[in-house]
Amino acid sequence: MSQSQDFTQLIARQNVAKPQCFVLFGATGDLAKRKIFPALFALFLDKKLPSRFCIIGLGRKPNTDEEFRKYVEDKILEFARLKGDSKSRREFVEKIFYLALDIDGDYSPLKKILGEKEPSFGTQENRTFYLAVAPSYFTIIPQKLKEIGLLHDKGCASFANIIIEKPFGTDLTSALALDLELKKILFEEQIYRIDHYLGKETVQNIFAFRFSNHFIDHLFTSEFVESVQIVAAEDLVVGDRVEFYDSVGCLRDFCQNHLMQVLAFIAMEAPSRNEAEFIHQEKSKVLRSIKKIDAIVRSQYEKGYINTDAVHGYRDDERVKNSNIDTFVGMRLFVDNFRWGGTPFYLFAGKALPRKYTEVNIVLKKAPFSLFPQSSQQNIISIQIQPKEGISIIIRTKVPAKTSLKPVKLDFYYDDYFSSESIPEAYETLIFNAMSEDRSLFTDRDELIASWELFDPIIQEWKKQNLEADEFYPAGSWPEIMKKVFLEGHYLVI
Amino acid sequence: MSQSQDFTQLIARQNVAKPQCFVLFGATGDLAKRKIFPALFALFLDKKLPSRFCIIGLGRKPNTDEEFRKYVEDKILEFARLKGDSKSRREFVEKIFYLALDIDGDYSPLKKILGEKEPSFGTQENRTFYLAVAPSYFTIIPQKLKEIGLLHDKGCASFANIIIEKPFGTDLTSALALDLELKKILFEEQIYRIDHYLGKETVQNIFAFRFSNHFIDHLFTSEFVESVQIVAAEDLVVGDRVEFYDSVGCLRDFCQNHLMQVLAFIAMEAPSRNEAEFIHQEKSKVLRSIKKIDAIVRSQYEKGYINTDAVHGYRDDERVKNSNIDTFVGMRLFVDNFRWGGTPFYLFAGKALPRKYTEVNIVLKKAPFSLFPQSSQQNIISIQIQPKEGISIIIRTKVPAKTSLKPVKLDFYYDDYFSSESIPEAYETLIFNAMSEDRSLFTDRDELIASWELFDPIIQEWKKQNLEADEFYPAGSWPEIMKKVFLEGHYLVI
Repeated sequence: MSQSQDFTQLIARQNVAKPQCFVLFGATGDLAKRKIFPALFALFLDKKLPSRFCIIGLGRKPNTDEEFRKYVEDKILEFARLKGDSKSRREFVEKIFYLALDIDGDYSPLKKILGEKEPSFGTQENRTFYLAVAPSYFTIIPQKLKEIGLLHDKGCASFANIIIEKPFGTDLTSALALDLELKKILFEEQIYRIDHYLGKETVQNIFAFRFSNHFIDHLFTSEFVESVQIVAAEDLVVGDRVEFYDSVGCLRDFCQNHLMQVLAFIAMEAPSRNEAEFIHQEKSKVLRSIKKIDAIVRSQYEKGYINTDAVHGYRDDERVKNSNIDTFVGMRLFVDNFRWGGTPFYLFAGKALPRKYTEVNIVLKKAPFSLFPQSSQQNIISIQIQPKEGISIIIRTKVPAKTSLKPVKLDFYYDDYFSSESIPEAYETLIFNAMSEDRSLFTDRDELIASWELFDPIIQEWKKQNLEADEFYPAGSWPEIMKKVFLEGHYLVI
Repeated sequence: MSQSQDFTQLIARQNVAKPQCFVLFGATGDLAKRKIFPALFALFLDKKLPSRFCIIGLGRKPNTDEEFRKYVEDKILEFARLKGDSKSRREFVEKIFYLALDIDGDYSPLKKILGEKEPSFGTQENRTFYLAVAPSYFTIIPQKLKEIGLLHDKGCASFANIIIEKPFGTDLTSALALDLELKKILFEEQIYRIDHYLGKETVQNIFAFRFSNHFIDHLFTSEFVESVQIVAAEDLVVGDRVEFYDSVGCLRDFCQNHLMQVLAFIAMEAPSRNEAEFIHQEKSKVLRSIKKIDAIVRSQYEKGYINTDAVHGYRDDERVKNSNIDTFVGMRLFVDNFRWGGTPFYLFAGKALPRKYTEVNIVLKKAPFSLFPQSSQQNIISIQIQPKEGISIIIRTKVPAKTSLKPVKLDFYYDDYFSSESIPEAYETLIFNAMSEDRSLFTDRDELIASWELFDPIIQEWKKQNLEADEFYPAGSWPEIMKKVFLEGHYLVI
């Protein structure tokens, strides 16, 4: 009889990390200092690390444990979301040991240190290896670990899992080759491929939003949806990382992985169980249902204005002055299955765009008949991934005292319900899940290959061709060429 | 390519009031000063009155035009939402003329003054008569008007319409008798029966909300809806009007009219056209689909506490010390048609309840299967009629960093989009619509009779029986007896 009901309940899948040793390759690198150590420290503060736990950091340079601990503490102070107090930082870094190791060389020093620390920390020979290194090492390290006997087989009492950063291949051939190499050493279940988008709360929430709100999932079909629009727009130019960026481009940096993963969550069927295996199965089915990329455009920014600031064009940087790389990609595709057949999915990503936001807009169909003059504004279910995380539904309502309609937003923002401190960084979620052996938020092999299969023909085609005159856009504007992928009469949300 | 679209568009039905004379019976009464003149003045300020327009106020007492104009101006200053400036008030009251008239007597003075004012104001003999008088005069006045030739017939170039206040009868027999009497004099199309609930923006918006948002209307069926709950709760005791209230009770004061009208808007099919005739047809169909009130309880408040204030019980007032009247009514009914069969509608109204609010809650069914442990909190589409007008949808979302769900509200409030000044009082809307001959927001005969047919057996039954011991509730609490109408396992929103 009252509203004071039990408003919070547990989801079935409840992760707990077993005792383990976390072995970090690339411990002195950029990702380690910016993301991995801050994430581990946040997990420590949140009491999510197992009580029996230690970290072994591996790098090229020599360092004492104490030097490295001091370095980690400095980086936590510099980069971490939660900085704790000196006592908690001290307690955390005392779990860390440093070892200088030549990745191409002899791994017996690693075997030795594990032989010392594992018994003393009681980590039961459970090992999570994090490869925060260049892709060229993705097969060497597992190979070496295998050779020296640090990788347990499937079926052992202890686990040995490997976290790999993107990029997982640069095209279909290289991705298949990498997969083949790894599979000689590892089982698919041991490989945790990071797509940091999947660690974002709002991306994870797509799954909960759809499958815990029956009416929402019911609307997610071609019967009700006119189009799905997935946008990841940045309002910054490429900047210092231009040389790396030029080797990748927007399609491979953003679309082939992040956007396709978001798409898979939006379009997937409910899994038989809320478990990684079943979730991957459904996501793969979605990606495999896409017969081809129906239409795609690329574009590169020229000089322009972003928020009144004059910026240089991409090619104005000497280092990439002849580049044909894409800084913007727009595409249309269809998920050719019973749920989504006929509904276009529009995906856009790019840099130097008018504003920064990542969101999914599900544009609902107009009614077959209207009692009111048709509005250009349609009902839209919007999932805002960033910068202001939330969910909204645009509805039409009557204007008071008038006989007219106006679109208004039913909205919910994370800010209003959850303190920003309570929202973890993607890396916290992903590292914790990997340590808990929950693979549901990692890209599995079939998803990855399905995505490469879709984009490989485009990558090969684009390599051959120089950008045309209409494939440039002034920084700070939406590329005109994106209109080419839009079907006549469809409502574009930007 | 931009969001700056034409966000406002006209609804097909666009009202314009023709030149006319507004003849107010009961011009010195309570309703006139509190509601009718303030509403007319607001319409004047909003430029919604026809340019050729005058008002004739009729009362028992003698008054000069100037005395009465001064009185009206005072009442505007005291009661009106918009008070204008002295110039605008002056301009308004100069359209007003006063005539002392014995309602039971000779109407030739009225005929005479109309004969003078109509030509001089150019109102083309169009007349809107407002009967702000006791129900016992509802037939006498039209009869007298007819006899003296002031009521045009249907088909004439000019119109003569009559606005009648509630109550329209006190039970089925009296309502049928009143209708029969009126129909000897008037056509149904000339009768505008006021239910001020229909003038509320949020009630009118139910129609726009459903039929201009396809997905919402799609969800409004027994396939998706577990129950509909319509609540009109007041946190005040009856007070000075106790003698009037005791002759009516909650069922007739609130349920039979207001709640049933709201129910009709919630449950109706889309009309063939957005016009009064078609809307009434659909609303009548809903009310006629209800075969009976499936379960109903009444209750009367005893002494208690409302918001920490001690209040007396209803019977503690000497004037009604033996009263068996209902100050709370709760009921369950089914709309026995193809859209709603099997879905219970719960209606509650009452005084001296824990808080003041009027809202409609559409509780959606749980999914046939859940990937997550079932929550006691379901998806609810909520239309808040007062005090804070808005619409919300309760959805479940993932709690950041946790594997749990939490209900959150997607919400829209009028406050955030429209200035409170822009929201008209119900009487402004209703008077304007009556003057424009738009009957869509008035109760039509068939709706009225259908509602009386449903409640008459209950009224007759309750008259015969004294309240039982369990039919009392402490003021400031929800009556325990309301549980009796609730079906096992249904979620109650209060």
